[in-house]
Amino acid sequence: MAKQKKQPRPKAETPKGFRDSFGAEVEARRQMLDRIAGVYRLYGFDALETSAVETVEALGKFLPDVDRPNAGVFAWQEEDDGKWLALRYDMTAPLARVFAQHRNDLPTPYRRYAMGPVWRNEKPGPGRFRQFYQCDADTVGSASMAADAEICAMLADALEAAGIARGDYVIRINNRKVLNGVLEAVDPQGSVDRDAVLRSIDKFDKVGEAGVRALLGKGRLDASGAYIDGVGLSEAQAEPVIAFLTSRGENAAQTLANLREAVGESKVGGEGIGELEQIADLLAAQGYGDDRIVIDPSVVRGLGYYTGPVFEAELTFEITDEKGRLRQFGSVAGGGRYDDLVKRFTGQAVPATGISIGVDRLLAALSAKGRGPAEAPGPVVVTVMDRAAMGEYQAMAAELRAAGIRAEVYLGNPKNFGNQLKYADKRGAPVAVIAGEDERARSVVQLKDLVLGARIAQNATLEEWKARPSQFEVARDDLVAGVRRILAGEDAGNNG
Amino acid sequence: MAKQKKQPRPKAETPKGFRDSFGAEVEARRQMLDRIAGVYRLYGFDALETSAVETVEALGKFLPDVDRPNAGVFAWQEEDDGKWLALRYDMTAPLARVFAQHRNDLPTPYRRYAMGPVWRNEKPGPGRFRQFYQCDADTVGSASMAADAEICAMLADALEAAGIARGDYVIRINNRKVLNGVLEAVDPQGSVDRDAVLRSIDKFDKVGEAGVRALLGKGRLDASGAYIDGVGLSEAQAEPVIAFLTSRGENAAQTLANLREAVGESKVGGEGIGELEQIADLLAAQGYGDDRIVIDPSVVRGLGYYTGPVFEAELTFEITDEKGRLRQFGSVAGGGRYDDLVKRFTGQAVPATGISIGVDRLLAALSAKGRGPAEAPGPVVVTVMDRAAMGEYQAMAAELRAAGIRAEVYLGNPKNFGNQLKYADKRGAPVAVIAGEDERARSVVQLKDLVLGARIAQNATLEEWKARPSQFEVARDDLVAGVRRILAGEDAGNNG
Repeated sequence: MAKQKKQPRPKAETPKGFRDSFGAEVEARRQMLDRIAGVYRLYGFDALETSAVETVEALGKFLPDVDRPNAGVFAWQEEDDGKWLALRYDMTAPLARVFAQHRNDLPTPYRRYAMGPVWRNEKPGPGRFRQFYQCDADTVGSASMAADAEICAMLADALEAAGIARGDYVIRINNRKVLNGVLEAVDPQGSVDRDAVLRSIDKFDKVGEAGVRALLGKGRLDASGAYIDGVGLSEAQAEPVIAFLTSRGENAAQTLANLREAVGESKVGGEGIGELEQIADLLAAQGYGDDRIVIDPSVVRGLGYYTGPVFEAELTFEITDEKGRLRQFGSVAGGGRYDDLVKRFTGQAVPATGISIGVDRLLAALSAKGRGPAEAPGPVVVTVMDRAAMGEYQAMAAELRAAGIRAEVYLGNPKNFGNQLKYADKRGAPVAVIAGEDERARSVVQLKDLVLGARIAQNATLEEWKARPSQFEVARDDLVAGVRRILAGEDAGNNG
Repeated sequence: MAKQKKQPRPKAETPKGFRDSFGAEVEARRQMLDRIAGVYRLYGFDALETSAVETVEALGKFLPDVDRPNAGVFAWQEEDDGKWLALRYDMTAPLARVFAQHRNDLPTPYRRYAMGPVWRNEKPGPGRFRQFYQCDADTVGSASMAADAEICAMLADALEAAGIARGDYVIRINNRKVLNGVLEAVDPQGSVDRDAVLRSIDKFDKVGEAGVRALLGKGRLDASGAYIDGVGLSEAQAEPVIAFLTSRGENAAQTLANLREAVGESKVGGEGIGELEQIADLLAAQGYGDDRIVIDPSVVRGLGYYTGPVFEAELTFEITDEKGRLRQFGSVAGGGRYDDLVKRFTGQAVPATGISIGVDRLLAALSAKGRGPAEAPGPVVVTVMDRAAMGEYQAMAAELRAAGIRAEVYLGNPKNFGNQLKYADKRGAPVAVIAGEDERARSVVQLKDLVLGARIAQNATLEEWKARPSQFEVARDDLVAGVRRILAGEDAGNNG
């Protein structure tokens, strides 16, 4: 167990790289997860929820960023048997473990979806958190490219269900086998560090063609002034890699033709191109055209376990970043085929493919576009004029709730009535209910329309003010009806 | 970072005390959480989602079971600054941290709800897991007993929303102050270990009055044969504690009268009884009577941070346990007032009260009562008779989905058609769609009613079989309509 530091008072702070979500933000995330899961379900995917904790050996080491020393997982050792446990860093490694463990009971192919937080022990930075949500769908046990095509089509549907309009995203597809084919031709001995080649290509978006050329060769000076070592390919070796990287044509057919030239005689390269062609044909047959899904050879994806097609969904609209610069929002989902992950456990090859949507990034994108969560309407606040009548106030709130209206009794110190209205305001309450001794004696309540009140205070004309006062008296028995009228934006009083 | 063991193959297993949830189980939990959260929201509580990870100093040490050495949290040390982090063991400690951190921006009182997993580094056992779900609601910043009464009423509503019928649960209320009052009278010097007294009382359900008497005195022989040391009270000292413990009367008024006798002149004891009286009055005024909420002096709750009223919800029906014995299901929710938790951070007293529902226990209770999650209906399975027609099969599935019908194309090896039907069966598919070369040439599809087929195979008479064959041919254009008819339990064929 951990030692607790001897300090007079603990600090009230979230650990570095972690954060809290409040109210509307939580509801918006829940809603987005529900919508994406709804699409996954419609495609026949079943829910799976694994625990947050796995053995380190089951998780394996597949995280990208191998050049950063402290990248990794949050791990600890069990006291009794010394086993290392860790928080999952994605949903794919646990799925491979589950499929290996329960393969005799699960249908094959096994389509599953999963949603929840994952954890990465990385250096936190702006917009870079160590816990974030993923919503995944994977098909385990099918080698068919129809499985990959289905994943891409479903990803498009899921993004649209999550609120990203068609035209605001593009799904880019590539195939690791094609790159392997290119490298086979360039480096038949396999003496080149292929992961380093992958990482160089992955920087194409940032450093451009010349930058990648330098990284594949002798290296280059970073923007920060640091010198990044190159992979060490000769110019002649780098050329086909660059040709591959820039072989995206005007349409799928042209891109495929360019790729065929780039891989030359390579068998695995040709296989990869054939797979891309199959996926493109299946998607086209279902109406998922170039406007949504394209073949793009510059997509490689960081994770080490991909073995075939890889996918990436990118938002194409521009947002203003924290420094006020316009930039493309970038990737919100990624995935691919990983035929060897289950084999780690069982020794038998089990083909698999899937996608992971970065739900928190998607929410950030919608917020950046001004389509973040609307503040949820607050509850009706029943104010407290007389502590002894608390039971009556509670009964009013209960009546409103029974009618499906969110309602609460003010539970702070009721002495200062102004504080009660300030509280109602902070809660975003649409209505305050007021019942003092006089009102209770006459079996009436006062209803204060706080939304209208706020608007009137800001910019109403005298005529509007007169035509629609923001406070009404209704009979106690008409409490629910009166509140309903205000919520519907109608005149609440019978005398209004 | 963790060292990875050098092993030829990792084991595919969930870590000890953790588990995986599949399909209908995941959906049922999600639904229950949604329903409970719906009640909390209706009462004006706002969502809060903290990260799973907190600093160990912020969490503090409040877990029960202090007599078990390995009880505690999952913790690890940060590499850069040496801080200890840990997984939350409940939702209350993080709430106290959040309120202390954001108190200037949050409304006061702050009503919040939270749902999600918590983690306990305990010895796993049957039905005892190290990750489980809680669904909490708390009011921070109100000292009013109306806040406690509201929590109890809301708990009753939430249990009913979760599917527990009225009469199948009871919420028991007590007050730590009353016990403190009794102990003040018995032990004015404060020389007795009060936590040990609490733990003895907590065993009342298991060991009965005589057992508690022994535990308060010299100790007793456990069922396992182990000797449990007693608290060391004299018989004269133990007597009032036993009187307190057994002072539950036929109704609230009688219980309160009995308690008044038990606390004698104690100020804090009298205060506690006054609080219980207020809560009982408020609840009675709202119609939450003895059939749902009772005062029960034997309730103490294990957690160390409670300072006033404590609550416990218990299911009253009997279930058959794993050994075939009938027993009461027991506690599914607990909570209470903890006025000092925020003070740990800020130095200023902030009153707070709340409740935590053990969602996994509640699900287990419903399952034990035979009301567990129904297997969700599987998707319509479009079988593959001809690999080259994959685009067409995908289009069929897409049409069904566009009509809101869960559907998928078989993506395993299509060679053996029997395997496809076995797969559809394992998936719980209601319908299989079959379109071979012949059907496609004639622009028709075969629809196989798998639910009816299974029933017929089991027990249909020849007449039934004839009257309603389980396979039909429909025009390709009538695919969706035909499937809809089968799903509605109607005759699918026009020719049926």
